[in-house]
Amino acid sequence: MQVIKYPLKSEWQKLTERPIIDNSNLEEKVQYVLDEVKSNGDAAIKRFTLEFDRVELENFMVSEQEFSDAEIQIEPDLKEAIDTAYANIKKFHIAQKETTRKIETMPGVECWRTSVPIEKVGLYIPGGTAPLFSTLLMLGIPAVIAGCKEISICTPADKQGKINPAILYVAKLLRITTVYKIGGAQAIAAFAYGTETVSKVYKIFGPGNQYVTCAKQLVAKKDMAIDIPAGPSELLVLADGSCVPAFVAADLLSQAEHGIDSQVILVSDSEKIISEVVKELNQQVSVLPRTEIALKALENSKAILFNTLQDGITFANQYAPEHLIIACEKDEELAEQVINAGSVFLGNYTPESAGDYASGTNHTLPTNGYAKAYSGVSLDSFVKKITFQKISKEGIHNIGKTVELMADKEGLRAHKNAVSIRLKNTTK
Amino acid sequence: MQVIKYPLKSEWQKLTERPIIDNSNLEEKVQYVLDEVKSNGDAAIKRFTLEFDRVELENFMVSEQEFSDAEIQIEPDLKEAIDTAYANIKKFHIAQKETTRKIETMPGVECWRTSVPIEKVGLYIPGGTAPLFSTLLMLGIPAVIAGCKEISICTPADKQGKINPAILYVAKLLRITTVYKIGGAQAIAAFAYGTETVSKVYKIFGPGNQYVTCAKQLVAKKDMAIDIPAGPSELLVLADGSCVPAFVAADLLSQAEHGIDSQVILVSDSEKIISEVVKELNQQVSVLPRTEIALKALENSKAILFNTLQDGITFANQYAPEHLIIACEKDEELAEQVINAGSVFLGNYTPESAGDYASGTNHTLPTNGYAKAYSGVSLDSFVKKITFQKISKEGIHNIGKTVELMADKEGLRAHKNAVSIRLKNTTK
Repeated sequence: MQVIKYPLKSEWQKLTERPIIDNSNLEEKVQYVLDEVKSNGDAAIKRFTLEFDRVELENFMVSEQEFSDAEIQIEPDLKEAIDTAYANIKKFHIAQKETTRKIETMPGVECWRTSVPIEKVGLYIPGGTAPLFSTLLMLGIPAVIAGCKEISICTPADKQGKINPAILYVAKLLRITTVYKIGGAQAIAAFAYGTETVSKVYKIFGPGNQYVTCAKQLVAKKDMAIDIPAGPSELLVLADGSCVPAFVAADLLSQAEHGIDSQVILVSDSEKIISEVVKELNQQVSVLPRTEIALKALENSKAILFNTLQDGITFANQYAPEHLIIACEKDEELAEQVINAGSVFLGNYTPESAGDYASGTNHTLPTNGYAKAYSGVSLDSFVKKITFQKISKEGIHNIGKTVELMADKEGLRAHKNAVSIRLKNTTK
Repeated sequence: MQVIKYPLKSEWQKLTERPIIDNSNLEEKVQYVLDEVKSNGDAAIKRFTLEFDRVELENFMVSEQEFSDAEIQIEPDLKEAIDTAYANIKKFHIAQKETTRKIETMPGVECWRTSVPIEKVGLYIPGGTAPLFSTLLMLGIPAVIAGCKEISICTPADKQGKINPAILYVAKLLRITTVYKIGGAQAIAAFAYGTETVSKVYKIFGPGNQYVTCAKQLVAKKDMAIDIPAGPSELLVLADGSCVPAFVAADLLSQAEHGIDSQVILVSDSEKIISEVVKELNQQVSVLPRTEIALKALENSKAILFNTLQDGITFANQYAPEHLIIACEKDEELAEQVINAGSVFLGNYTPESAGDYASGTNHTLPTNGYAKAYSGVSLDSFVKKITFQKISKEGIHNIGKTVELMADKEGLRAHKNAVSIRLKNTTK
C-alpha cells in the first residue's frame, strides 16, 4: 500500500483516478456472440455454452426436480442465514414504495405519478467458482416487490450442468421459476433479443466478468436498458483516532480480495492510524485463502494522510467511492457531508460486508466515479414512474391562455389549437 | 393517415414498430467534433460555432446586461404565462421530494436512504427557429428543487449572437446565471469534457437535433450520464364514442407538427369515430403554418380499429407511447391498466399540449418504446439516492453469523473476517 502524506490540492484529482479499463479489444468478439445469438437463437447459445463453459446442455431450463433437489442439498444453517438476509433486504426495499398522491396544480388541473413495474426483467447471476446467490437476493427482492410480471434469471451451470443449490434456493424463496443455465455474453444476448427458449426482456440487471460487462454495454447502446455501468469494486475508508486499526484493515482486505483490480483507499488525519492499519494489513493478509489477489490489489492501493478530516471527506466526495466507511468519532456529522458515494457505513461496527450480504441495503452500486451521477440499484430500478393528468372544463379555462401563449411563442400553432378548440367549444 | 381495421394479434407487433433511425453515418462526424473540443477546448468551440451556426463569438457567456435586456424585451403576457407554468411545474415536482426514513431492519441495524443532488448538471436547450424555453422550465425547475450546485445551460445564439429573451427570462427566474452560447454537438462536448470557459458536468439533459442526440449517445458510452435516450416525439390517442373528434384531431396534429418523423396513432373501438377524426384532420391541417410537416407526419401515421377498448389499451401498452391520451368515457378505469407510457392525459379536456407546457408534469419523456423500461425526467433525475447504514455492537452480534456464513459460502473469506474480528473483540 502506497502511503501519501499531505497531498497538495492540485494533486487530488490524480489520486482519484481509476485504472483505465479498455474493453475495445473485446468488443469485436462480444459483438460476434451477440449477432450469432440474435440470428441463430438457441443453437448459438448451445454452441457458445459448449465452447466457453465446456458444458453440453440439451435443455437450458432448470427443472422442478432441480429446484427440489437444491432445497434438500442446501445446509440448514445457510438456509437460515439466507432467510435472515432476505427479511432485512425486503424490509428496507419495501420502505422505498411510493404512494400515488394527486396534486391539484391549479383549480381543475390534477396531476399524479404512479410507479408501474417494468414488465419483463432479466437478472444475470455469476456462477462458476463464486456463485453469487447474494446478488440474486439483491436483484430479485426489489423485482418481486415492484411486481415485475416476468422475472427471469440467467446463470452459468458448472461442468456437470448443475446450478449451485444456494442460487436455486433463493430463486425458489422469491418464487422465480424461470432460471436458464446460460452464462457469459450469450446470456446477455438471450435477454436482449430472445431465443426460442428465452424470452426477451426490457431491462437487464447484474454483474459479471469482462465479457458480460462488455455485452451489457453493447446492447445498452441501442436495444436495451441496463442497471448501471459496471467497473471494479471499490472501498474508501475515512478513519480517525477513534477507529480500531484491526477492523479497518479487515475491511480494506474484504475489498482487496475481490480481484486484482479492486480499489482500496484509506484516508486519515492521523499518521499513527495509517501506520497501525498498514501493520495490521500485513499480518491479516497472509492468512487469507485469496492472499495473492489481495496483495496484488493492495499494490495499487493508497493510504492518504490529510491535515484534517474535513479535507478527508472533501477528497472522498471527489473520489466518489462505491463503498465509503466512516470510522470516525463524528461519523454521523461527516455522513451529512457525503455528496458522492454508493453506500455508506458508519462507525466501528459496520463492516462493508454487512451491507454486501444482509444489513438491508442493496449491494449493486455505482463504481468508477459513477456515484457522482448514478444511484445504486433500488426499488426505483424496477419501476417506471408514469405521470398522469386530468383537466376539467374549468381547468382548461384556467390554464388555457398560458398554454396558448407559450405554444405560440415557440412557433407551435397546432399545440395552441389543441387548447383553443376546447376553449371555443366549452364554457367554464 | 392509414386506416387499419381489426388487425390480427399476430400483426400487432409490426404495427408498434417505429421507423429505424440510423445515426451511424453521423457518428464519425460527431466523434470528430467531440475529439476536437476535448483536445482544443474553447478554440474548437469557436471554430465549430462559426462553421455550423455562422456566428463569430468572442465570449460564450451571457452577460448580466443581456439578462437585464431580456427581461425588458419579453412581453408582459408571455412573462405571466411563464410564471403560471413555473408555479404549476414547481408544485408537481416539489411533491416528488422524498424524506429520509430510518429503517431498523433488525435490532441494532439501522439503514436509510438520502436523496443527494447531483453536483454539476448541464442543460441543453435548443435555440434557433424554435427556442424551447418550455424545456428550460422542465429541466431547470427540478434541478433547482433538487439543489444541484452548479447548473449550466448551453443554447445556440442566433445570427446576431443573441439568445432568445424568453430563455434568458426563464434562466433568471430559476437563478441560473451560467448560460453559454453554444449549440450542437460542440455543446455536448463542452459539458462532457469541459473547456477553459465551460465547466465539465456530471450529467447532461435536454433534447436536440440529430447531432446533439448522437453526441449525447457517444459521450454516454463512456464518460457521462445522460437523461434518457432520445427519439422522435409520439402520441397515441385511445378514443371511444364519448370523444370529441375535433379535439382528437387537434391533438393528433399538435404531435404531427413537431417533425416529419413524428409518430401519431389513433386507436378506437368505433369506426364512426375514426372516420370523423380523419375528416377533422383534413380540415384542420390545411390552416396550420406547418401544414407540410404535419401532412408528411400523418402519412406515416395510423388509425387502428379494434373490436374492444380492452384490445385498444393492450395494444397501447405494447406500443409504449411517449404520450397517451385516453379520450374515453371510462378514462380513469383504463388509466389503471396503463403499463407502458411516458405521460398520460385523461378525458376530453386534457390536451397533450397542456402537459407540454404548463399542467405541472414533465415533458421530457421516453420515446421509441423506451417507456417499457424508462421513466420521464423528474426530480429523481437530478439526485442520487445514497444508502447509509449504522450497526451497533448489539447489531453486529445479531447479524454477524448470517454475514459470516454467506461470505464463507461465496468463498470470500476476508468478507467473513471483517465480521469475525468485530465479534471476537466485542460483547453484545
